[in-house]
Amino acid sequence: MNDVHYMKLAISLASSAKGQTSPNPIVGSVVVKNGEIVGFGAHLKAGEPHAEVHALKMAGDKAEGATVYVTLEPCSHYGKTPPCAELLIEKKVSRVVIASVDPNPLVAGKGIKMLKDAGIIVEAGVEEESALALNEVFFHYIQTNRPFVTLKTGVSLDGKTATVTGESKWITSPEARLDAHEYRHQHDAILVGVGTVKGDDPSLTTRLPAGGKNPIRIILDNHLNTPLSAKVVNDKEAPTWIVTSNTVAKEKLELFQNKPVEIISLPTEKVEIDLLLEELGSRKITSLFVEGGATVNGSFVQANAVNQFVTYIAPKLIGGKLAPTSVGGLGIESMDDIVQLQINEVKQIGSDVKIVAVPLRNKEV
Amino acid sequence: MNDVHYMKLAISLASSAKGQTSPNPIVGSVVVKNGEIVGFGAHLKAGEPHAEVHALKMAGDKAEGATVYVTLEPCSHYGKTPPCAELLIEKKVSRVVIASVDPNPLVAGKGIKMLKDAGIIVEAGVEEESALALNEVFFHYIQTNRPFVTLKTGVSLDGKTATVTGESKWITSPEARLDAHEYRHQHDAILVGVGTVKGDDPSLTTRLPAGGKNPIRIILDNHLNTPLSAKVVNDKEAPTWIVTSNTVAKEKLELFQNKPVEIISLPTEKVEIDLLLEELGSRKITSLFVEGGATVNGSFVQANAVNQFVTYIAPKLIGGKLAPTSVGGLGIESMDDIVQLQINEVKQIGSDVKIVAVPLRNKEV
Repeated sequence: MNDVHYMKLAISLASSAKGQTSPNPIVGSVVVKNGEIVGFGAHLKAGEPHAEVHALKMAGDKAEGATVYVTLEPCSHYGKTPPCAELLIEKKVSRVVIASVDPNPLVAGKGIKMLKDAGIIVEAGVEEESALALNEVFFHYIQTNRPFVTLKTGVSLDGKTATVTGESKWITSPEARLDAHEYRHQHDAILVGVGTVKGDDPSLTTRLPAGGKNPIRIILDNHLNTPLSAKVVNDKEAPTWIVTSNTVAKEKLELFQNKPVEIISLPTEKVEIDLLLEELGSRKITSLFVEGGATVNGSFVQANAVNQFVTYIAPKLIGGKLAPTSVGGLGIESMDDIVQLQINEVKQIGSDVKIVAVPLRNKEV
Repeated sequence: MNDVHYMKLAISLASSAKGQTSPNPIVGSVVVKNGEIVGFGAHLKAGEPHAEVHALKMAGDKAEGATVYVTLEPCSHYGKTPPCAELLIEKKVSRVVIASVDPNPLVAGKGIKMLKDAGIIVEAGVEEESALALNEVFFHYIQTNRPFVTLKTGVSLDGKTATVTGESKWITSPEARLDAHEYRHQHDAILVGVGTVKGDDPSLTTRLPAGGKNPIRIILDNHLNTPLSAKVVNDKEAPTWIVTSNTVAKEKLELFQNKPVEIISLPTEKVEIDLLLEELGSRKITSLFVEGGATVNGSFVQANAVNQFVTYIAPKLIGGKLAPTSVGGLGIESMDDIVQLQINEVKQIGSDVKIVAVPLRNKEV
C-alpha cells in the first residue's frame, strides 16, 4: 500500500458523487494511520461538508499524526464552510497528499502554503492526471466562467441522424441511449434547438433505472416559436429556459407568462453561442449537454464552443444525399479549416460504437 | 499439441497467401508424424500446386502413416492439377483432419468420401469457423458466381466525405489510407464512379511499402463520360474496364478504341448493380472493392449488394448541411427499411477508428 493506492481510492470515492455536487467539484479523501484506513469521505453536495471534513470526522482522534489523502488542494478560505486547511491543522495531521492543486489561479497554492506553514508535510501531484480528468468540467468552469460543453450525437454508420423524411426513432441501441442518459444526469443543463422541440416534443429528462437528476432544459429559439403545448413548457419535470433574441415581440413573450418556463432574451438579433455560454456561466451552469439538431450543433462547432464530442455510431445504413447529418450549418469550405479532434475513448455499447473525442486545442491550453 | 494447434498453424500458413491466389481459395496444410511436424505448405497461386502437394513433398517418405491437416477439403477432381485426395491416398497417410468442406455443393464431400473409401481416417470441422472466415470471399463467389463486395468509406466524425466545396484530401490518417491499400491488394478489382475519376483523377493502384498487387480498375460510367486524359485510361498500371449502358453512341465508344481500356456495355439504359456483378462474376472477378463516391455507394447499398462495410472515421469535423456523405442516392424513407448491420471489428488505426461491419442478412444465409 502506497500513496498511489490510497489516492486511487480517494479518486474512486470522489467519482461516486459525479453529477451531484455542481457547481462544486467532486472530491474524495482518505485518512490513513499506521497503514490502516481510519476515515474516508467525499463531497456529496454543494453547501454540505467537504471531503476532508467527512473523512476527519470518521477518523476522530486517530486523525492526529495521520496522513490525509485528498484529490483536490484543501481550501484556504471561508465559503459556505470553514477552510479545510485550518481543520487539518487543528486535527494535527502530520502529512497531506494532494492529487491536484486548486484550479482557481487566485487561490491555487494557498491551501498548501497554509499547511506547510503549520509544519505539515505536503506532497502534491500524486495521480494528478486522473484527478484533473475527474473535474475537467469544474476546472473549465472555474477558469473560463463558461459551462463545459458536451455535444452528443447518434448516427448511422453512414453519418445520418434521420431518414430523408425525418424519421429517427431509433437509430442507436437502447444501451447507447441509456449511456446518454448518464450524461444528462451528470450535466447541469441540456440544450436543444426549437426544431427538435417542434419535431419530437421531447421531455429531455433523465431516465435511468435508478432515477437520476434532471438537467435544466434550455431551448435555443431565436424567434420564440416553441409551441405552448410542448412537454418542456408544461410538465414541470425540471426548470425550462427558453433562450431567444431581442427581436421577439412583447405579445409573443406574454404568451409564456403563465407557463412554468423562464424566457432569457439575449440582447442580439440572433442567439450567439459565446453570449449564450457567458449568460449560462453567470447562472452557475457549469456543464451543458447539447443534443442538437444539426443547425444547433453546427452553431456550437462553428463557435469552437464544444469541449467534448460524444458520438454513438449504430451499425445501420440510412443513405440519401438529403438525409440529415449531425453537424449542419454552412460547414467549412477548405480542408485547412477542418476541426481537428483527438479520440479519448472508443467503446462498443450494445450494438453500437461510442467515440469520445476532444478538440486538440484543448490539449494546448 | 492437438488437432486445434496444428489446424491453427495451417490456417496461419493459408493467411500468408491472402490476396495472391484468386480465383482460388487460400489453403494451408501441415503434415505431422509422431508428434513432429514433417511438412507444411500453402497454395500460393492459381495454377500452381495445392497446399497438400507442397506439404507432402516436404514430408517425403515420412508422409506414410502421418496425419495431414488441411484447411479446406482436398479436391477430388482433375483441374489444373491432379486431385489431392488421390495424392494423399498414394502417399499412404493414415489420417486427414479438415477444417471446412468444399463450398461448391456439386463437389462437397466427394474428397472426404474418396479418402474414407481408401481407409483413411477423416475428421472434418476442426477450427471450421476460422477457415470459413479465411475464404469468405472465395466461398461467396463459388456459391453465387458474383464477387464478394467490400464497400470502403473514409469519413469525418460528423459523417462527411468532403467539404461543401468538394475538398477531401485528406480526411483520414496516413495509417488508415495504408490499411485501405491492403484491401486493394486483396481484391481482384476496385470500382469507382465516373464522378470520382473526373473529380480526383485517381490511379486506383495499390501503394504498399512492399508493393502489392494492383486490382483491375472498374469505372461505373452510364454515359461514358470518363475523360480520355484520365490516369486510369492511359497509365497501363493495371487493366481498366469502363462499364457503361446501352445508351452510348458508337462515335463515343470509338474514342476509346486506341486506349488501353476495355469498354463493357451492359444491355440496359442504366448500369444495374445486379447485372454488373453477374458480368464481373463471369469474368472471374471474385472480389470487388468499392470506393464510391456517394451515388455509387448508394446504388450498391440499395441493391443489397455489399457483403462487408469498411469505414474509417477520422476525429475531424467538417460540418455543413450540404457537405457530401458516404452513402447518397435517395436513401430510405421509413426506419422500417433501415439496413441493419453487425459490427465485426472496431479498431484504432493511426488517429482514426476503423469499423468493419457486415449485413445481418449474411448471417442468416
